[in-house]
Amino acid sequence: MALSKNKIRAIASLSKKKERDESGLFLAEGEKIVSDLLPTFHCRTLVCTEAFHQKHPHATAEELILAEKEEISKASLLQSPPPALAVFEKPRHAIDKRRIAQQLTLALDTIQDPGNLGTILRVADWFGIEDIVCSMDTADLYNPKVVQATMGAIARVRVHYTDLERFLQENEETPIYGTFLDGENIYGQELTSNGIVVMGNEGKGISERMSKLIRRRLFIPSYPAERTTSESLNVAMATGIVCSEFRRRGL
Amino acid sequence: MALSKNKIRAIASLSKKKERDESGLFLAEGEKIVSDLLPTFHCRTLVCTEAFHQKHPHATAEELILAEKEEISKASLLQSPPPALAVFEKPRHAIDKRRIAQQLTLALDTIQDPGNLGTILRVADWFGIEDIVCSMDTADLYNPKVVQATMGAIARVRVHYTDLERFLQENEETPIYGTFLDGENIYGQELTSNGIVVMGNEGKGISERMSKLIRRRLFIPSYPAERTTSESLNVAMATGIVCSEFRRRGL
Repeated sequence: MALSKNKIRAIASLSKKKERDESGLFLAEGEKIVSDLLPTFHCRTLVCTEAFHQKHPHATAEELILAEKEEISKASLLQSPPPALAVFEKPRHAIDKRRIAQQLTLALDTIQDPGNLGTILRVADWFGIEDIVCSMDTADLYNPKVVQATMGAIARVRVHYTDLERFLQENEETPIYGTFLDGENIYGQELTSNGIVVMGNEGKGISERMSKLIRRRLFIPSYPAERTTSESLNVAMATGIVCSEFRRRGL
Repeated sequence: MALSKNKIRAIASLSKKKERDESGLFLAEGEKIVSDLLPTFHCRTLVCTEAFHQKHPHATAEELILAEKEEISKASLLQSPPPALAVFEKPRHAIDKRRIAQQLTLALDTIQDPGNLGTILRVADWFGIEDIVCSMDTADLYNPKVVQATMGAIARVRVHYTDLERFLQENEETPIYGTFLDGENIYGQELTSNGIVVMGNEGKGISERMSKLIRRRLFIPSYPAERTTSESLNVAMATGIVCSEFRRRGL
Protein backbone atom coordinates (compact mmCIF):
# COMPACT_ATOMS: atom_id res chain seq x y z
CA MET A 1 0.00 0.00 0.00
CA ALA A 2 1.21 3.45 -0.74
CA LEU A 3 1.08 6.53 1.40
CA SER A 4 -1.80 8.50 -0.14
CA LYS A 5 -2.24 12.23 0.23
CA ASN A 6 -5.32 11.65 2.36
CA LYS A 7 -3.39 9.33 4.64
CA ILE A 8 -0.58 11.86 4.99
CA ARG A 9 -3.09 14.55 5.87
CA ALA A 10 -4.85 12.31 8.40
CA ILE A 11 -1.58 11.41 10.13
CA ALA A 12 -0.26 14.96 10.26
CA SER A 13 -3.59 16.21 11.62
CA LEU A 14 -2.87 14.30 14.84
CA SER A 15 -0.56 17.12 15.85
CA LYS A 16 -3.80 18.94 16.79
CA LYS A 17 -5.47 18.16 20.10
CA LYS A 18 -8.94 18.57 18.62
CA GLU A 19 -8.24 15.87 16.05
CA ARG A 20 -6.81 13.53 18.69
CA ASP A 21 -9.83 14.08 20.94
CA GLU A 22 -12.33 13.47 18.15
CA SER A 23 -10.61 10.46 16.63
CA GLY A 24 -9.33 8.88 19.84
CA LEU A 25 -6.01 8.36 18.07
CA PHE A 26 -2.44 9.51 18.61
CA LEU A 27 0.81 9.51 16.68
CA ALA A 28 4.18 8.10 17.70
CA GLU A 29 7.34 8.54 15.67
CA GLY A 30 10.77 6.95 15.71
CA GLU A 31 12.17 3.44 15.84
CA LYS A 32 12.46 3.08 19.61
CA ILE A 33 9.16 4.61 20.63
CA VAL A 34 7.13 2.83 17.92
CA SER A 35 8.63 -0.54 18.76
CA ASP A 36 8.09 0.14 22.48
CA LEU A 37 4.41 0.94 21.95
CA LEU A 38 3.48 -1.72 19.39
CA PRO A 39 3.10 -4.55 21.93
CA THR A 40 0.94 -2.42 24.23
CA PHE A 41 -1.38 -0.25 22.17
CA HIS A 42 -3.73 -1.11 19.35
CA CYS A 43 -2.08 0.13 16.15
CA ARG A 44 -4.32 1.45 13.39
CA THR A 45 -1.63 2.34 10.91
CA LEU A 46 2.05 1.51 10.86
CA VAL A 47 4.15 3.31 8.27
CA CYS A 48 7.71 2.02 8.17
CA THR A 49 10.69 1.17 6.05
CA GLU A 50 11.35 -2.34 4.82
CA ALA A 51 14.34 -2.46 7.20
CA PHE A 52 12.19 -1.62 10.24
CA HIS A 53 9.66 -4.25 9.24
CA GLN A 54 12.30 -6.95 8.97
CA LYS A 55 13.68 -6.02 12.38
CA HIS A 56 10.20 -6.21 13.94
CA PRO A 57 8.46 -8.95 11.95
CA HIS A 58 5.84 -9.58 14.64
CA ALA A 59 4.59 -6.02 14.71
CA THR A 60 0.87 -6.07 14.12
CA ALA A 61 -1.19 -3.22 12.79
CA GLU A 62 -4.60 -2.98 11.12
CA GLU A 63 -2.86 -1.38 8.22
CA LEU A 64 0.81 -1.74 7.32
CA ILE A 65 2.36 0.64 4.82
CA LEU A 66 5.92 0.05 3.71
CA ALA A 67 7.52 3.25 2.49
CA GLU A 68 10.84 4.92 1.85
CA LYS A 69 12.10 7.40 4.42
CA GLU A 70 11.49 10.26 2.02
CA GLU A 71 7.87 9.28 1.71
CA ILE A 72 7.53 8.88 5.50
CA SER A 73 8.93 12.37 5.94
CA LYS A 74 5.83 13.78 4.23
CA ALA A 75 3.64 12.61 7.12
CA SER A 76 6.26 13.08 9.83
CA LEU A 77 6.33 16.00 12.25
CA LEU A 78 10.00 15.42 12.98
CA GLN A 79 12.83 17.23 11.26
CA SER A 80 14.65 14.12 10.16
CA PRO A 81 12.31 11.40 8.90
CA PRO A 82 12.08 8.36 11.19
CA PRO A 83 12.14 4.75 9.93
CA ALA A 84 8.70 4.23 11.46
CA LEU A 85 5.65 6.15 12.55
CA ALA A 86 2.44 4.72 13.88
CA VAL A 87 -1.11 5.77 14.63
CA PHE A 88 -2.38 4.17 17.83
CA GLU A 89 -5.72 4.13 19.59
CA LYS A 90 -5.59 6.03 22.86
CA PRO A 91 -6.04 3.54 25.69
CA ARG A 92 -9.03 3.92 27.98
CA HIS A 93 -7.88 2.87 31.38
CA ALA A 94 -10.46 2.64 34.12
CA ILE A 95 -9.37 3.95 37.51
CA ASP A 96 -9.25 0.97 39.83
CA LYS A 97 -10.12 2.19 43.34
CA ARG A 98 -8.60 -0.82 45.00
CA ARG A 99 -5.29 -0.27 43.26
CA ILE A 100 -5.31 3.42 44.20
CA ALA A 101 -5.82 2.46 47.85
CA GLN A 102 -2.81 0.15 47.82
CA GLN A 103 -0.29 1.91 45.64
CA LEU A 104 1.55 5.18 45.30
CA THR A 105 -0.24 7.36 42.72
CA LEU A 106 0.61 10.77 41.28
CA ALA A 107 -2.11 13.40 40.78
CA LEU A 108 -1.30 16.34 38.51
CA ASP A 109 -3.20 19.55 39.15
CA THR A 110 -2.99 21.63 35.94
CA ILE A 111 0.54 20.81 34.79
CA GLN A 112 0.77 23.00 31.71
CA ASP A 113 4.13 22.37 30.12
CA PRO A 114 4.21 19.28 27.85
CA GLY A 115 7.92 18.86 28.55
CA ASN A 116 7.24 18.66 32.29
CA LEU A 117 4.51 16.09 31.73
CA GLY A 118 6.87 13.92 29.70
CA THR A 119 9.60 14.16 32.32
CA ILE A 120 7.13 13.33 35.10
CA LEU A 121 5.94 10.24 33.21
CA ARG A 122 9.49 9.06 32.75
CA VAL A 123 10.50 9.46 36.39
CA ALA A 124 7.19 7.91 37.54
CA ASP A 125 8.03 4.88 35.39
CA TRP A 126 11.49 4.65 36.98
CA PHE A 127 9.97 4.64 40.44
CA GLY A 128 7.32 2.06 39.57
CA ILE A 129 4.30 4.35 39.73
CA GLU A 130 1.55 2.70 37.72
CA ASP A 131 -1.15 5.38 37.68
CA ILE A 132 -1.07 9.12 37.12
CA VAL A 133 -4.35 10.97 37.52
CA CYS A 134 -4.48 14.35 35.73
CA SER A 135 -6.90 17.25 36.01
CA MET A 136 -8.75 17.81 32.76
CA ASP A 137 -6.70 20.95 32.05
CA THR A 138 -3.32 19.25 32.41
CA ALA A 139 -1.25 19.15 29.21
CA ASP A 140 -2.24 16.43 26.74
CA LEU A 141 -0.20 13.26 27.07
CA TYR A 142 -0.92 12.42 23.44
CA ASN A 143 0.72 15.55 22.08
CA PRO A 144 3.39 14.02 19.78
CA LYS A 145 6.12 15.94 21.63
CA VAL A 146 5.08 14.43 24.97
CA VAL A 147 4.81 10.95 23.46
CA GLN A 148 8.39 11.42 22.27
CA ALA A 149 9.64 12.81 25.59
CA THR A 150 8.31 9.90 27.64
CA MET A 151 10.83 7.53 26.05
CA GLY A 152 8.37 4.68 26.11
CA ALA A 153 7.11 5.23 29.67
CA ILE A 154 3.71 5.92 28.09
CA ALA A 155 3.44 2.17 27.52
CA ARG A 156 3.96 1.32 31.17
CA VAL A 157 2.21 4.06 33.16
CA ARG A 158 -1.58 4.44 33.00
CA VAL A 159 -2.52 8.09 32.64
CA HIS A 160 -6.09 9.15 33.44
CA TYR A 161 -7.73 12.51 32.73
CA THR A 162 -10.61 13.16 35.08
CA ASP A 163 -12.24 15.62 37.47
CA LEU A 164 -9.35 15.70 39.94
CA GLU A 165 -11.30 17.21 42.82
CA ARG A 166 -13.90 14.48 42.61
CA PHE A 167 -11.17 11.82 42.33
CA LEU A 168 -9.58 13.07 45.56
CA GLN A 169 -12.98 13.20 47.28
CA GLU A 170 -13.73 9.66 46.22
CA ASN A 171 -10.42 8.40 47.55
CA GLU A 172 -10.29 10.24 50.85
CA GLU A 173 -9.54 7.12 52.83
CA THR A 174 -6.19 6.91 50.98
CA PRO A 175 -3.51 9.26 52.42
CA ILE A 176 -3.39 12.37 50.22
CA TYR A 177 -0.09 14.29 50.07
CA GLY A 178 0.84 17.53 48.37
CA THR A 179 3.92 19.74 48.18
CA PHE A 180 3.58 23.29 49.49
CA LEU A 181 6.08 26.04 50.21
CA ASP A 182 4.86 26.02 53.82
CA GLY A 183 4.64 22.24 54.15
CA GLU A 184 6.56 19.95 56.50
CA ASN A 185 10.15 18.92 55.74
CA ILE A 186 9.65 15.75 53.69
CA TYR A 187 12.85 14.14 54.95
CA GLY A 188 11.55 14.06 58.52
CA GLN A 189 7.95 13.06 57.77
CA GLU A 190 6.52 9.61 58.05
CA LEU A 191 5.52 8.52 54.57
CA THR A 192 3.11 5.68 53.90
CA SER A 193 3.85 3.12 51.18
CA ASN A 194 0.47 3.87 49.60
CA GLY A 195 -0.99 7.29 48.89
CA ILE A 196 -1.85 9.96 46.34
CA VAL A 197 0.72 12.70 45.81
CA VAL A 198 -0.65 15.91 44.27
CA MET A 199 1.76 18.08 42.28
CA GLY A 200 0.68 21.60 41.36
CA ASN A 201 0.80 23.99 38.44
CA GLU A 202 4.16 25.45 37.35
CA GLY A 203 3.28 29.00 38.36
CA LYS A 204 0.44 28.79 40.84
CA GLY A 205 1.14 25.56 42.67
CA ILE A 206 -1.74 23.43 43.95
CA SER A 207 -5.16 25.04 43.53
CA GLU A 208 -7.25 25.93 46.55
CA ARG A 209 -9.94 23.40 45.74
CA MET A 210 -7.42 20.56 45.84
CA SER A 211 -5.53 21.98 48.84
CA LYS A 212 -8.60 21.52 51.00
CA LEU A 213 -8.50 17.80 50.36
CA ILE A 214 -4.82 17.39 51.20
CA ARG A 215 -4.10 16.40 54.79
CA ARG A 216 -0.38 15.79 54.49
CA ARG A 217 1.52 18.86 53.39
CA LEU A 218 5.11 18.26 52.35
CA PHE A 219 8.02 20.53 51.47
CA ILE A 220 11.43 19.81 49.90
CA PRO A 221 13.76 22.04 51.92
CA SER A 222 16.48 23.98 50.17
CA TYR A 223 20.00 23.84 51.62
CA PRO A 224 21.32 25.11 53.92
CA ALA A 225 18.10 25.24 55.91
CA GLU A 226 18.53 28.83 57.05
CA ARG A 227 19.15 30.19 53.55
CA THR A 228 16.08 31.91 52.20
CA THR A 229 15.55 31.59 48.50
CA SER A 230 12.83 33.07 46.38
CA GLU A 231 13.36 30.41 43.76
CA SER A 232 11.42 27.19 43.51
CA LEU A 233 12.16 23.76 42.15
CA ASN A 234 10.79 22.88 38.74
CA VAL A 235 7.68 20.72 39.20
CA ALA A 236 9.10 17.72 37.32
CA MET A 237 12.25 17.85 39.43
CA ALA A 238 10.19 18.14 42.62
CA THR A 239 8.13 15.12 41.51
CA GLY A 240 11.27 13.06 41.00
CA ILE A 241 12.67 13.99 44.41
CA VAL A 242 9.36 13.25 46.15
CA CYS A 243 9.09 9.86 44.42
CA SER A 244 12.67 9.04 45.37
CA GLU A 245 11.92 9.90 48.99
CA PHE A 246 8.77 7.73 49.10
CA ARG A 247 10.51 4.79 47.46
CA ARG A 248 13.65 5.05 49.60
CA ARG A 249 11.54 4.19 52.62
CA GLY A 250 10.15 1.11 50.88
CA LEU A 251 13.44 -0.41 49.75
CA MET B 1 21.90 56.81 23.14
CA ALA B 2 20.17 54.99 20.36
CA LEU B 3 20.45 51.38 19.37
CA SER B 4 22.67 51.54 16.28
CA LYS B 5 22.77 48.85 13.64
CA ASN B 6 26.27 47.93 14.72
CA LYS B 7 25.15 47.56 18.30
CA ILE B 8 22.22 45.37 17.28
CA ARG B 9 24.55 43.19 15.26
CA ALA B 10 27.05 42.93 18.12
CA ILE B 11 24.36 41.92 20.60
CA ALA B 12 22.72 39.36 18.33
CA SER B 13 26.12 37.84 17.49
CA LEU B 14 26.34 36.61 21.10
CA SER B 15 24.02 33.78 20.15
CA LYS B 16 27.17 32.20 18.66
CA LYS B 17 29.61 30.40 20.93
CA LYS B 18 32.60 31.57 18.91
CA GLU B 19 31.65 35.20 19.49
CA ARG B 20 31.11 34.62 23.20
CA ASP B 21 34.45 32.87 23.53
CA GLU B 22 36.33 35.60 21.68
CA SER B 23 34.65 38.54 23.36
CA GLY B 24 34.28 37.05 26.83
CA LEU B 25 30.73 38.39 26.85
CA PHE B 26 27.25 36.89 27.14
CA LEU B 27 23.69 38.02 26.65
CA ALA B 28 20.78 37.86 29.11
CA GLU B 29 17.22 38.79 28.21
CA GLY B 30 14.08 39.45 30.20
CA GLU B 31 13.14 41.52 33.23
CA LYS B 32 13.74 38.92 35.91
CA ILE B 33 17.00 37.47 34.66
CA VAL B 34 18.56 40.86 33.84
CA SER B 35 17.65 42.30 37.23
CA ASP B 36 18.92 39.12 38.93
CA LEU B 37 22.28 39.33 37.17
CA LEU B 38 22.91 43.10 37.34
CA PRO B 39 24.12 43.09 40.97
CA THR B 40 26.50 40.18 40.33
CA PHE B 41 28.06 40.52 36.92
CA HIS B 42 29.80 43.43 35.25
CA CYS B 43 27.36 44.84 32.70
CA ARG B 44 28.80 46.26 29.51
CA THR B 45 25.55 47.29 27.86
CA LEU B 46 22.05 47.50 29.29
CA VAL B 47 19.26 48.06 26.78
CA CYS B 48 15.93 48.63 28.49
CA THR B 49 12.66 50.48 28.46
CA GLU B 50 12.13 53.65 30.46
CA ALA B 51 9.78 51.65 32.72
CA PHE B 52 12.45 49.03 33.51
CA HIS B 53 14.96 51.74 34.29
CA GLN B 54 12.62 53.47 36.72
CA LYS B 55 11.94 50.19 38.47
CA HIS B 56 15.67 49.46 38.79
CA PRO B 57 17.22 52.91 39.22
CA HIS B 58 20.42 51.57 40.80
CA ALA B 59 21.25 49.29 37.90
CA THR B 60 24.75 50.14 36.73
CA ALA B 61 26.14 49.46 33.30
CA GLU B 62 29.06 50.89 31.32
CA GLU B 63 26.56 51.85 28.68
CA LEU B 64 22.84 52.42 29.22
CA ILE B 65 20.54 52.56 26.22
CA LEU B 66 16.89 53.45 26.76
CA ALA B 67 14.73 52.09 23.99
CA GLU B 68 11.19 51.16 23.07
CA LYS B 69 10.27 47.49 23.10
CA GLU B 70 10.05 47.44 19.33
CA GLU B 71 13.59 48.68 19.04
CA ILE B 72 14.78 46.15 21.63
CA SER B 73 13.16 43.40 19.60
CA LYS B 74 15.64 44.03 16.79
CA ALA B 75 18.51 42.88 18.99
CA SER B 76 16.53 40.29 20.92
CA LEU B 77 16.69 36.54 20.28
CA LEU B 78 13.33 36.03 22.00
CA GLN B 79 10.02 35.85 20.20
CA SER B 80 8.33 38.54 22.24
CA PRO B 81 10.63 41.48 22.96
CA PRO B 82 11.67 41.78 26.62
CA PRO B 83 11.72 45.09 28.54
CA ALA B 84 15.45 44.61 29.11
CA LEU B 85 18.44 42.84 27.68
CA ALA B 86 22.00 43.09 28.85
CA VAL B 87 25.49 42.19 27.74
CA PHE B 88 27.60 40.99 30.66
CA GLU B 89 31.24 40.02 31.03
CA LYS B 90 31.62 36.30 31.69
CA PRO B 91 32.93 35.88 35.22
CA ARG B 92 36.28 34.19 35.70
CA HIS B 93 36.03 32.25 38.88
CA ALA B 94 39.17 30.61 40.20
CA ILE B 95 38.73 27.10 41.59
CA ASP B 96 39.43 27.31 45.30
CA LYS B 97 40.92 23.98 46.38
CA ARG B 98 40.11 24.58 50.01
CA ARG B 99 36.46 25.19 49.23
CA ILE B 100 36.32 22.05 47.08
CA ALA B 101 37.71 20.01 49.99
CA GLN B 102 35.03 21.26 52.35
CA GLN B 103 31.91 21.47 50.22
CA LEU B 104 29.73 19.39 47.97
CA THR B 105 30.66 20.06 44.34
CA LEU B 106 29.17 18.81 41.09
CA ALA B 107 31.42 17.74 38.21
CA LEU B 108 29.84 17.42 34.76
CA ASP B 109 31.49 15.01 32.34
CA THR B 110 30.35 16.02 28.83
CA ILE B 111 26.76 17.07 29.49
CA GLN B 112 25.63 17.91 25.98
CA ASP B 113 22.08 19.18 26.20
CA PRO B 114 21.83 22.89 27.09
CA GLY B 115 18.42 22.27 28.69
CA ASN B 116 19.92 19.67 31.03
CA LEU B 117 22.72 22.06 31.98
CA GLY B 118 20.19 24.78 32.86
CA THR B 119 18.11 22.37 34.92
CA ILE B 120 21.21 21.10 36.74
CA LEU B 121 22.26 24.65 37.60
CA ARG B 122 18.83 25.42 38.99
CA VAL B 123 18.63 22.33 41.20
CA ALA B 124 22.23 22.82 42.34
CA ASP B 125 21.28 26.34 43.44
CA TRP B 126 18.30 24.96 45.39
CA PHE B 127 20.54 22.53 47.23
CA GLY B 128 23.18 25.14 48.01
CA ILE B 129 25.91 23.82 45.73
CA GLU B 130 28.31 26.67 45.08
CA ASP B 131 30.63 25.22 42.46
CA ILE B 132 30.04 23.17 39.33
CA VAL B 133 33.12 21.99 37.47
CA CYS B 134 32.51 21.11 33.80
CA SER B 135 34.61 19.24 31.28
CA MET B 136 35.63 21.50 28.39
CA ASP B 137 33.16 19.74 26.07
CA THR B 138 30.13 20.27 28.31
CA ALA B 139 27.41 22.52 26.83
CA ASP B 140 28.11 26.25 27.09
CA LEU B 141 26.55 27.88 30.12
CA TYR B 142 26.54 31.21 28.32
CA ASN B 143 24.31 30.01 25.51
CA PRO B 144 21.38 32.48 25.80
CA LYS B 145 18.94 29.57 26.14
CA VAL B 146 20.83 28.16 29.12
CA VAL B 147 21.14 31.60 30.72
CA GLN B 148 17.36 31.84 30.43
CA ALA B 149 16.73 28.31 31.73
CA THR B 150 18.78 28.81 34.89
CA MET B 151 16.21 31.29 36.23
CA GLY B 152 18.93 33.38 37.86
CA ALA B 153 20.88 30.47 39.38
CA ILE B 154 23.75 31.54 37.14
CA ALA B 155 24.28 34.46 39.52
CA ARG B 156 24.67 32.22 42.56
CA VAL B 157 26.51 29.12 41.37
CA ARG B 158 30.10 29.37 40.13
CA VAL B 159 30.57 27.32 36.97
CA HIS B 160 34.09 26.40 35.89
CA TYR B 161 35.19 24.89 32.58
CA THR B 162 38.42 22.99 32.92
CA ASP B 163 40.28 19.76 32.22
CA LEU B 164 38.01 17.58 34.35
CA GLU B 165 40.39 14.63 34.59
CA ARG B 166 43.13 16.85 35.92
CA PHE B 167 40.71 18.52 38.32
CA LEU B 168 39.75 15.14 39.79
CA GLN B 169 43.42 14.10 40.00
CA GLU B 170 44.28 17.31 41.82
CA ASN B 171 41.49 16.81 44.35
CA GLU B 172 41.92 13.13 45.04
CA GLU B 173 41.93 13.63 48.80
CA THR B 174 38.30 14.80 48.53
CA PRO B 175 35.78 11.90 48.28
CA ILE B 176 34.85 11.50 44.59
CA TYR B 177 31.43 10.01 43.82
CA GLY B 178 29.81 9.08 40.53
CA THR B 179 26.56 7.45 39.44
CA PHE B 180 26.81 4.16 37.54
CA LEU B 181 24.26 1.57 36.50
CA ASP B 182 26.27 -1.00 38.50
CA GLY B 183 26.93 1.27 41.48
CA GLU B 184 25.84 0.82 45.10
CA ASN B 185 22.30 1.71 46.18
CA ILE B 186 22.65 5.37 47.15
CA TYR B 187 19.99 5.16 49.86
CA GLY B 188 22.05 2.68 51.87
CA GLN B 189 25.46 4.27 51.34
CA GLU B 190 27.26 6.48 53.78
CA LEU B 191 27.59 9.88 52.18
CA THR B 192 30.07 12.50 53.35
CA SER B 193 29.01 16.13 53.72
CA ASN B 194 31.86 17.17 51.42
CA GLY B 195 32.75 15.59 48.10
CA ILE B 196 32.77 15.82 44.33
CA VAL B 197 29.87 14.15 42.50
CA VAL B 198 30.53 13.33 38.84
CA MET B 199 27.52 13.16 36.51
CA GLY B 200 28.01 11.65 33.05
CA ASN B 201 26.98 12.22 29.47
CA GLU B 202 23.34 11.73 28.44
CA GLY B 203 24.05 8.74 26.23
CA LYS B 204 27.39 7.33 27.30
CA GLY B 205 27.44 8.01 31.02
CA ILE B 206 30.72 8.75 32.78
CA SER B 207 33.78 8.33 30.55
CA GLU B 208 36.40 5.71 31.31
CA ARG B 209 39.08 8.25 32.09
CA MET B 210 36.94 9.78 34.84
CA SER B 211 35.63 6.42 36.08
CA LYS B 212 39.13 5.42 37.09
CA LEU B 213 39.29 8.33 39.49
CA ILE B 214 35.94 7.61 41.13
CA ARG B 215 36.16 5.51 44.30
CA ARG B 216 32.53 5.77 45.39
CA ARG B 217 30.15 4.38 42.83
CA LEU B 218 26.49 5.18 43.42
CA PHE B 219 23.23 4.06 41.83
CA ILE B 220 19.67 5.35 42.15
CA PRO B 221 17.61 2.14 42.27
CA SER B 222 14.39 1.90 40.32
CA TYR B 223 11.33 0.53 42.12
CA PRO B 224 10.43 -2.15 42.91
CA ALA B 225 13.99 -3.39 43.35
CA GLU B 226 13.48 -6.64 41.46
CA ARG B 227 11.96 -4.98 38.39
CA THR B 228 14.47 -4.81 35.57
CA THR B 229 14.19 -1.78 33.37
CA SER B 230 16.19 -0.88 30.32
CA GLU B 231 15.38 2.78 30.81
CA SER B 232 17.51 5.28 32.62
CA LEU B 233 16.84 8.47 34.49
CA ASN B 234 17.48 11.73 32.71
CA VAL B 235 20.82 13.13 33.93
CA ALA B 236 19.34 16.37 35.30
CA MET B 237 16.73 14.38 37.24
CA ALA B 238 19.42 12.01 38.56
CA THR B 239 21.48 15.03 39.64
CA GLY B 240 18.53 16.44 41.58
CA ILE B 241 17.84 13.16 43.34
CA VAL B 242 21.51 12.67 44.23
CA CYS B 243 21.74 16.23 45.61
CA SER B 244 18.55 15.69 47.62
CA GLU B 245 20.00 12.51 49.09
CA PHE B 246 23.30 14.17 50.08
CA ARG B 247 21.54 17.14 51.64
CA ARG B 248 18.96 15.06 53.48
CA ARG B 249 21.77 13.58 55.56
CA GLY B 250 23.04 17.05 56.43
CA LEU B 251 19.72 18.55 57.59
